Amino acid sequence: MVEDLYRARLKERPSSKTAAFLSSLYDDLRILEEDLDGTEAHNIMLFEKGVMSKRELASILASLEGIREEWCEGKLVLDTKFEDIHELVESRVVEEIGIEIGGKLHTGRSRNDQVAVDLRMRVRKDLLNLSDKLLDLIEVLIKLSEKHSDSLMILYTHTQHAQVGVYAQYLLSYVDALIRDFERFSDCFVRVNLSPLGACAIGGTSIPIDRDRTCELLGFDGLVENSIDAVSSRDFAVETASHLATLMSGLSRISEDLILWSTSEFGYVELSDEFSSTSSVMPQKKNPCSVELVRGKTGIAYGALVNLLTMVKGLNTGYSRDLQETKSPLWTSFDAAESSLEILVGVFRTLKVKADRMRSNIAESYAPAVDLAEALTRECDLSFREAHRIVGELIRESVKSKVLFNQIKTKTLEEACKKVLGRDVVLSSSLLATVADIESDLSRRVSVGSPNPSEARRMIALRKKNAKILRTRLSDRNLKIEKARKRLMTSVRRYITKRR
Amino acid sequence: MVEDLYRARLKERPSSKTAAFLSSLYDDLRILEEDLDGTEAHNIMLFEKGVMSKRELASILASLEGIREEWCEGKLVLDTKFEDIHELVESRVVEEIGIEIGGKLHTGRSRNDQVAVDLRMRVRKDLLNLSDKLLDLIEVLIKLSEKHSDSLMILYTHTQHAQVGVYAQYLLSYVDALIRDFERFSDCFVRVNLSPLGACAIGGTSIPIDRDRTCELLGFDGLVENSIDAVSSRDFAVETASHLATLMSGLSRISEDLILWSTSEFGYVELSDEFSSTSSVMPQKKNPCSVELVRGKTGIAYGALVNLLTMVKGLNTGYSRDLQETKSPLWTSFDAAESSLEILVGVFRTLKVKADRMRSNIAESYAPAVDLAEALTRECDLSFREAHRIVGELIRESVKSKVLFNQIKTKTLEEACKKVLGRDVVLSSSLLATVADIESDLSRRVSVGSPNPSEARRMIALRKKNAKILRTRLSDRNLKIEKARKRLMTSVRRYITKRR
Amino acid sequence: MVEDLYRARLKERPSSKTAAFLSSLYDDLRILEEDLDGTEAHNIMLFEKGVMSKRELASILASLEGIREEWCEGKLVLDTKFEDIHELVESRVVEEIGIEIGGKLHTGRSRNDQVAVDLRMRVRKDLLNLSDKLLDLIEVLIKLSEKHSDSLMILYTHTQHAQVGVYAQYLLSYVDALIRDFERFSDCFVRVNLSPLGACAIGGTSIPIDRDRTCELLGFDGLVENSIDAVSSRDFAVETASHLATLMSGLSRISEDLILWSTSEFGYVELSDEFSSTSSVMPQKKNPCSVELVRGKTGIAYGALVNLLTMVKGLNTGYSRDLQETKSPLWTSFDAAESSLEILVGVFRTLKVKADRMRSNIAESYAPAVDLAEALTRECDLSFREAHRIVGELIRESVKSKVLFNQIKTKTLEEACKKVLGRDVVLSSSLLATVADIESDLSRRVSVGSPNPSEARRMIALRKKNAKILRTRLSDRNLKIEKARKRLMTSVRRYITKRR
Amino acid sequence: MVEDLYRARLKERPSSKTAAFLSSLYDDLRILEEDLDGTEAHNIMLFEKGVMSKRELASILASLEGIREEWCEGKLVLDTKFEDIHELVESRVVEEIGIEIGGKLHTGRSRNDQVAVDLRMRVRKDLLNLSDKLLDLIEVLIKLSEKHSDSLMILYTHTQHAQVGVYAQYLLSYVDALIRDFERFSDCFVRVNLSPLGACAIGGTSIPIDRDRTCELLGFDGLVENSIDAVSSRDFAVETASHLATLMSGLSRISEDLILWSTSEFGYVELSDEFSSTSSVMPQKKNPCSVELVRGKTGIAYGALVNLLTMVKGLNTGYSRDLQETKSPLWTSFDAAESSLEILVGVFRTLKVKADRMRSNIAESYAPAVDLAEALTRECDLSFREAHRIVGELIRESVKSKVLFNQIKTKTLEEACKKVLGRDVVLSSSLLATVADIESDLSRRVSVGSPNPSEARRMIALRKKNAKILRTRLSDRNLKIEKARKRLMTSVRRYITKRR
Repeated sequence: MVEDLYRARLKERPSSKTAAFLSSLYDDLRILEEDLDGTEAHNIMLFEKGVMSKRELASILASLEGIREEWCEGKLVLDTKFEDIHELVESRVVEEIGIEIGGKLHTGRSRNDQVAVDLRMRVRKDLLNLSDKLLDLIEVLIKLSEKHSDSLMILYTHTQHAQVGVYAQYLLSYVDALIRDFERFSDCFVRVNLSPLGACAIGGTSIPIDRDRTCELLGFDGLVENSIDAVSSRDFAVETASHLATLMSGLSRISEDLILWSTSEFGYVELSDEFSSTSSVMPQKKNPCSVELVRGKTGIAYGALVNLLTMVKGLNTGYSRDLQETKSPLWTSFDAAESSLEILVGVFRTLKVKADRMRSNIAESYAPAVDLAEALTRECDLSFREAHRIVGELIRESVKSKVLFNQIKTKTLEEACKKVLGRDVVLSSSLLATVADIESDLSRRVSVGSPNPSEARRMIALRKKNAKILRTRLSDRNLKIEKARKRLMTSVRRYITKRR
Repeated sequence: MVEDLYRARLKERPSSKTAAFLSSLYDDLRILEEDLDGTEAHNIMLFEKGVMSKRELASILASLEGIREEWCEGKLVLDTKFEDIHELVESRVVEEIGIEIGGKLHTGRSRNDQVAVDLRMRVRKDLLNLSDKLLDLIEVLIKLSEKHSDSLMILYTHTQHAQVGVYAQYLLSYVDALIRDFERFSDCFVRVNLSPLGACAIGGTSIPIDRDRTCELLGFDGLVENSIDAVSSRDFAVETASHLATLMSGLSRISEDLILWSTSEFGYVELSDEFSSTSSVMPQKKNPCSVELVRGKTGIAYGALVNLLTMVKGLNTGYSRDLQETKSPLWTSFDAAESSLEILVGVFRTLKVKADRMRSNIAESYAPAVDLAEALTRECDLSFREAHRIVGELIRESVKSKVLFNQIKTKTLEEACKKVLGRDVVLSSSLLATVADIESDLSRRVSVGSPNPSEARRMIALRKKNAKILRTRLSDRNLKIEKARKRLMTSVRRYITKRR
Repeated sequence: MVEDLYRARLKERPSSKTAAFLSSLYDDLRILEEDLDGTEAHNIMLFEKGVMSKRELASILASLEGIREEWCEGKLVLDTKFEDIHELVESRVVEEIGIEIGGKLHTGRSRNDQVAVDLRMRVRKDLLNLSDKLLDLIEVLIKLSEKHSDSLMILYTHTQHAQVGVYAQYLLSYVDALIRDFERFSDCFVRVNLSPLGACAIGGTSIPIDRDRTCELLGFDGLVENSIDAVSSRDFAVETASHLATLMSGLSRISEDLILWSTSEFGYVELSDEFSSTSSVMPQKKNPCSVELVRGKTGIAYGALVNLLTMVKGLNTGYSRDLQETKSPLWTSFDAAESSLEILVGVFRTLKVKADRMRSNIAESYAPAVDLAEALTRECDLSFREAHRIVGELIRESVKSKVLFNQIKTKTLEEACKKVLGRDVVLSSSLLATVADIESDLSRRVSVGSPNPSEARRMIALRKKNAKILRTRLSDRNLKIEKARKRLMTSVRRYITKRR
Repeated sequence: MVEDLYRARLKERPSSKTAAFLSSLYDDLRILEEDLDGTEAHNIMLFEKGVMSKRELASILASLEGIREEWCEGKLVLDTKFEDIHELVESRVVEEIGIEIGGKLHTGRSRNDQVAVDLRMRVRKDLLNLSDKLLDLIEVLIKLSEKHSDSLMILYTHTQHAQVGVYAQYLLSYVDALIRDFERFSDCFVRVNLSPLGACAIGGTSIPIDRDRTCELLGFDGLVENSIDAVSSRDFAVETASHLATLMSGLSRISEDLILWSTSEFGYVELSDEFSSTSSVMPQKKNPCSVELVRGKTGIAYGALVNLLTMVKGLNTGYSRDLQETKSPLWTSFDAAESSLEILVGVFRTLKVKADRMRSNIAESYAPAVDLAEALTRECDLSFREAHRIVGELIRESVKSKVLFNQIKTKTLEEACKKVLGRDVVLSSSLLATVADIESDLSRRVSVGSPNPSEARRMIALRKKNAKILRTRLSDRNLKIEKARKRLMTSVRRYITKRR
């Protein structure tokens, strides 16, 4: 039994409780495969550079693959006496094939660069997965918006009726925000997919390692060159957590819209039963629990970001054990974001949109008021501010006397003009009717990006194209990494087989 | 099989993935015992109020105790198809004893008040546990300070030499800060230990429940009276998380001191091997990993607080599913704080304090400079600002010419006086020697709370007394809750036995 | 001109840009009065202890009062070449009355304890002010709730209809939460109102100061005894910021309710014009801007807390310049909270509650469903879970066939019973009618804290009493401090006058 | 006097206190110039599209330029009765040239898109400024590293001696991290520099505006197309704040290094007097206050980020007044970061590096231990793990018997080999001497990125090139915006002049 792999310098062992405190073993399980890949690549390079023989390499690789097999079959024994997965793996190899050969596995490397390379491999994977889900949501929203480019709906500011538009426009506003999230993760990937391996503890090594070779074997795009930087920096993790937090802030907004619009009072949408819960006591309840949880899980992403920012605050340069705490917040935040995206994909795929209710609610709204004001500037050669005041006066009176927008009389409007301008204004009899015709009103709003059906359709077409481009970019990145991995696994198997 | 206990209102079930997203089952395990206790108390009260028969009560209690047994033996089957532990428990009971009787268990109650009562029971327990560990650390520090009330040491401001003092004074400054932490948790406990049970979903019930009775049965000090408040509010959780964050900020400071003082360059303390780690590659390393991790885990507490604050931000009044996310950050933060306290208890219990090195470092320090300035005001009737300038001038010159403090000549001091004041000052020949005698110097610093040995001893005695008082307060609170629990368990067993 | 009051030790001065970076002068203005008070108290004590003559004291006090006068008249010249207000004040005094006397002002003191005492004096003041506004809001809410103890309203969970209650109950839930905020600030005050003065730089002084005397002169309740603790600790600031964040999280909830209930779709309340804004372009808009800003300013309080927590993370023990950054986040957070409280006082004082709309909305709601389920358990001897299922089934069918709750027929209910139980159940013909009678229904909900009119009235009476008790507690604290200050000012004037 | 520009719809005005609460006037001053630019561009476009006459345009532009002049001369009267700078400006214009013409200024626009365009113009400016300072720091560090590519120094992990390297390598690790910060801001700029103008309130306009034209006039790279997205989204602000927080976390690390290395105990560097402060009471003090403040101001950036994240959490889509709170945290965070960069530029430009002390400290260090272990693997054909154990054993004994690394005897090493391996190992007599020769030892560490002088020089050359490339990229972006602005100002002056 290989106890105390690294502790020759120290006499006493930690108690099992202290060992458990020190150990990151459970957080490490998420990088176990990455750790094995990285170790195998490192050892292949060591062999290629003449640091070990082919036979030694084969033994080490076989032992590592044994661990992988146990892990995949759920048989790997975990013990928090090991400080981390790195110690567990090396101990297992040493135990199995002896310290003379197994003890070579860690030559020209340190846990400091090892954990950094594992983390980066895992984060790049999670970034690509997440981006995939992001695109799923983007595509579902585009699809739904195609159905609703003619679904008239009130647009809200301050949660109050603002202007009339179409529901598609809301969905497209989500799409555009999510595309920015995609771009952020994509930019971040460039800084993540770099290899720190070979930085060793902090100051490199006299062992003739080849950093470019391990970089290539592991599918990285380049090196984190400076050895001090490579082991000390976690800004790639902080940046990742930042973008996850920003993403979740956007998902919390989408959720809030869905929750509000699911109320009996709004009644614009209804979540499918599959994404709703009921009450243990109130039999009538149908609660939008899934999106409430998405909103609630925003806290996870914010908290994880603050956790990481706190961790690195005021740390000295050089690896410190504090950095061990990078993993848990990252995993938690990725999980929250990924599952939230999946949920929203399902929610929108099955969402019941009550376009009739959306449409009928406009009838009771003063939302076309700004269209009236703009019409007044055109018809009567008034400045916008004058027109705005007239309509403001008009609406105040209408609210007071409970007259709906489409019930307002030309005469009343003329009175408001008189009151505000101090003079008579002649209005065409059709003016109010034209504005009250919501559809034609909307078609007049031709400014780029306006929420009218034709703009919606134009924008949908563009977004569809863009989504395809993003898909391609994503799969190219995936492909490069998968190819490297396939090559690595093939090499590993070849070395092992030859041995026999 | 009792599927869909609450979902009569809805047609479709969530997919297993969605169900897992919605479920809080794993976070709930930490309140399982509390949930059983709360349910038993509620049902005993229902029987007392005539809502169920003694036979029915006995069946329900027996079934609940069966679940508890399985849990304690690690045999309870968990399935995330259940939204939470509450559904799992009720389903199990209904499955076992039928819906006619088992279906009464949840009468006059909702999961909304149920989870609130469970949470409060668990948080009060965790608060008391944590306070216990806090006192452990306080006591260890007091003990260590007793050994070091004569250990002279430089006091630092801006991480630069400030004044001379004793090491005990540093330890006592930790003690005083930790006592404030204790008081904060103690104040918070008063707001936590209140029963929300009986608020039901949000609006109470027409079932003749007795809220005061369940309050008593569960060892609470009173009610969260308003039913809306009882199910909507999580400020007790936010407050708890705040105090945990503040505590951890203090522990990060203690850790930082230990890390700094463990460097080769300072060399004031050495952590025992048990609390140190070494390197996988650098054979000479002895790293203060345990306290680095305490410092690193500060991020967990900060992140958990931000998580909770985010969750409640902008939520409407009334239970929302977001609140389900209260648990995980609380558990994580408590665990980080508790284990950190335990680690520090061990670290200080086994700490090697290098008093000699502390003492010898003073010899190379200009830390007695302020004592000299104060002596000058007394001896020469100078204002403090004049004396301060003279000594400032003196030190600048001494640094430049590499003269240590205890090597400074009276003549040099007189020259500095002349330069600053523009006139001659007559100094007693013993002035510098007196100040350079650190021990006597320190004994002259008689202001209350000063870091001299006699003040240290006086303060140690007081802290010892205070620690005892806090122990008593803590055990009184523990006792009350334990007594209530013992009574409850006795009743439960009696009801069950009678049945047979 | 007194340049470089403290810099004898150093040769070069900072550039004006660097000086501005180092200076906290503008943040310090909020503690200027406290700084003068503290300095005067300290100097009176120095005189009493024989460290300076009465004539010297009088000169110093006169000079300080001159600064105060300039400040009050807006004539004080500020220059960021001074590192802080302390340097500015001492420089001014020295310039005015010479270094022989003026240079005595800072004897037996350091800026480290000085700024700590100033901060604590200001924070205690802000705490008391804030608590005063808190009580204002509590009282306004109680008053409004008295008007609405009979205003029937739907209670919401998950923003969905839950049960019927009264509006007063919502208001009282705010009251109870705010009272807990009050208690938190009150507990915190105990830890704030302690004097660190006399700790000096970090290690006390050989000057015969009397810490208890300055403590008394400045109206403190006791000492922060340990000199290291006194200058290093900012947990009182962190705790204050925590409670401000918790308070704001509560105010964000109240605001969210008001915003939701102000929508056209809910229409339960309308903010008065005074607290609303309109749009620069949409003439119909009436936006609840004041409460949106309260919700938005929640970020200020959260951010300030994180700012402070970050600042103290991993700092070594002993004053570090980082602590200078305590002030700005505290001031910002207090201002946000105080103004938010004032706004909400005004909002509720002028709020238009549309009780009719609240009442009429119930007619379209299935909120009485749980009352029906409970009635079924009583009438038909069903377990609650059976009754819950029956009503769940009933509501699902009613929603599908668009039958409102008060239109449901006994026959339909019997069919639901049959379907769920598999057997016939005989129902009294009056059952449904009784439940549909909301008022009587509500009166049957007699559990403590239930949202029925009589419980509301009972609780209002209690809260009124409690609010009075809190007022008294608050004014007692204010009084003690004011008395001390009055005594101090009288002494100051007496010393100055005698001089002439 | 133009009172209540927009409030025709409402009867009562806010009290002055409420108005001050609602107003963002003071935060707006930082976007005043941007607001004038944006308004001028918008009005020029309106004229070009035939919405106003040339004469009307000229009047409006002249009035706006009048306001600009007053502002630049510090004469602009500010009154918080105005909700914001937009209302102030429009009111001033209307007051000056009448509502018939002045009232046209806001045609086809809303404050919602207006404030978004102002913010983006200001943020892009601040991003470019900040990037400029970042490059200053990068260049200063490169320059300093050139001087220290041969300055031997201990590299630290866990704040303990790890390996020997050169100081240049530390400086370069800062450089590489700062370049990543630069890249982040650069990526962010792409998402910031887009025009939301023309989105109007939320739903576009029927006025024939030309969004592409205002985009071009204001130097943007494209549109935020969707009108809902354009007014609702603040992710560009959150992203900016995230990168500022990450930057500050890096600067806190650099500061921490400087503070640690400035201690008497380390003594590696000394800040120039210009960036140091002294004590009001301890005459010997020279405190690294400037970098302590940089570390302390990290809290500002973290707090600002949390502030913004909190603000957007759970907000509905559509402009809400909460978003007004975007400005203050952004300004504060930019200011903290910019001034911190300036300070660090000055600190490093004037830093006294004590290379001798760095070098001499190595003599007392066991840092070459890993070199010895690696030498053993080469010399004796041991596996690294065996060699690691041998050296671990050796060091433990040496520490115990107080033997320095360069005093270790070959015999002692042979004994350690024997003890660990259980067999004799023959060592060359020169082995230990070779390793103890630090310089040659370092030259053997040839792995890419290793901290040896030749690698340092190679990397310095590359960084210098890269810094130049970044400078060019930056100035290209600046140039484009400046050109657009120059063109705009020329047009404005031409229109105004023609009028006369």
